[in-house]
Amino acid sequence: MTISLRKARTIIRKTLEKGRELELKPLSVVVLDAGGHVQAFEREDGASPGRFAIAHGKAYGAVMLGMAGTAQMARAEQQAYFMGAVNGLFGGQMVPVPGGVLLRDKKGAVIGAVGVTGDTSDNDATAALAGIEAAGLTGEI
Amino acid sequence: MTISLRKARTIIRKTLEKGRELELKPLSVVVLDAGGHVQAFEREDGASPGRFAIAHGKAYGAVMLGMAGTAQMARAEQQAYFMGAVNGLFGGQMVPVPGGVLLRDKKGAVIGAVGVTGDTSDNDATAALAGIEAAGLTGEI
Amino acid sequence: MTISLRKARTIIRKTLEKGRELELKPLSVVVLDAGGHVQAFEREDGASPGRFAIAHGKAYGAVMLGMAGTAQMARAEQQAYFMGAVNGLFGGQMVPVPGGVLLRDKKGAVIGAVGVTGDTSDNDATAALAGIEAAGLTGEI
Amino acid sequence: MTISLRKARTIIRKTLEKGRELELKPLSVVVLDAGGHVQAFEREDGASPGRFAIAHGKAYGAVMLGMAGTAQMARAEQQAYFMGAVNGLFGGQMVPVPGGVLLRDKKGAVIGAVGVTGDTSDNDATAALAGIEAAGLTGEI
Repeated sequence: MTISLRKARTIIRKTLEKGRELELKPLSVVVLDAGGHVQAFEREDGASPGRFAIAHGKAYGAVMLGMAGTAQMARAEQQAYFMGAVNGLFGGQMVPVPGGVLLRDKKGAVIGAVGVTGDTSDNDATAALAGIEAAGLTGEI
Repeated sequence: MTISLRKARTIIRKTLEKGRELELKPLSVVVLDAGGHVQAFEREDGASPGRFAIAHGKAYGAVMLGMAGTAQMARAEQQAYFMGAVNGLFGGQMVPVPGGVLLRDKKGAVIGAVGVTGDTSDNDATAALAGIEAAGLTGEI
Repeated sequence: MTISLRKARTIIRKTLEKGRELELKPLSVVVLDAGGHVQAFEREDGASPGRFAIAHGKAYGAVMLGMAGTAQMARAEQQAYFMGAVNGLFGGQMVPVPGGVLLRDKKGAVIGAVGVTGDTSDNDATAALAGIEAAGLTGEI
Repeated sequence: MTISLRKARTIIRKTLEKGRELELKPLSVVVLDAGGHVQAFEREDGASPGRFAIAHGKAYGAVMLGMAGTAQMARAEQQAYFMGAVNGLFGGQMVPVPGGVLLRDKKGAVIGAVGVTGDTSDNDATAALAGIEAAGLTGEI
């Protein structure tokens, strides 16, 4: 099972709504499928041009390692050279901080990930979680 | 001036609607801003996983060169080594075929590009143009 | 749905058996999942050291484009610069010839791909197909 | 001398069996030959998609440097910039932690390496060692 475009759209809309409700800076949100491939992305007006790569990097590392942003950050703080090496394997495409949220189905299998960037890492993760819950899915931040 | 998220969403939705109306294969659509940066993207269910890169490559070359997909293809057929060399400058991110459509404002200034992939290159361009027109913009295929 | 390790093992064993039955040169066989990620691989004794990359390249392009090796080769022969550009998008990881076989479930959805290399491209594809059928799946060469 | 496919298969199977016996998370196991080239690989169901690269990175560094994962990690912790520089030489393909196990013949010559990933680095190495011993070989963790 993977994420449908319909679900991905809902996640993005609801994440952006949460961002506006919390008065966060302009957000960018990507949804990746179970193989780490882009399903949908939106960047709010006023967000800086490099935000696709950052949103993607948060979500991509989560899928490829099966490890959400918070756990990746803990590992990076404990063993920086390890996360650096792993990032090298994936072409430097990972960003190991909160805001990369794993999507799981009811059995716990990873079906994709959401990456949010624009405000603080913790606020990014909060907005992502709201979007994921609005889509009836469970997120692991 | 650049493309707004609202306009980008309209372009994507209307391009996908056109694809369904014409019974095309599942499409993927990206909208890039005037700097060649991703504003929004959607991949329909059933599209192959690599479609973000292809849609992006069609639109990215259009913005970076200020030359739509049809003109890029003509140049590639006439002088393949030139387009290959240019592509190398941009990290191999270009795909010089129709389906990369330049967006222009009323004065003719480039404000972004749309990239569509999934069906034949010509059908991809037709769907993109329908989406762009529905958003009140002019496309150059 | 994606390919299980059990199925992948069966495909590899039966592909190698077919190769021995047909007295082909030593074969290498990779099975990728629906996201283009390696599930299993075996290289027969006597095969040259670079065979992982070639088997992978045949199967990887098939998954990423949703297009089997025979169709990729036709496109490459018709429009070489296009397949070259697409290959660039994927880091030069594609090998667009027969021996890259798409795996489909009963509804026709792509669930992975098999890549075989070692003998002629056509013999590689024949062996792959035998392995895929032995696993109760349908292959598109 | 290098590792045979038959030996590689035994190592992989027995490593996976050890993982299940110890109730580790889903494992991925690669066997490289004396030249650092992939001989065989299997990824258990439920393992994240990026595990081939990580397993490969552990084993590849071991072969290329003639130094097992534990020794690589010690060097990385003592002199991170050195291991980073060496990793750059090999295209960023190394992961210098336990789970990369050197294979030696009875005279002590390196004949390949095993890379395991999925659980803690130490548990990965334990499982690898069990697989290697079941194949009648000696591993250096």
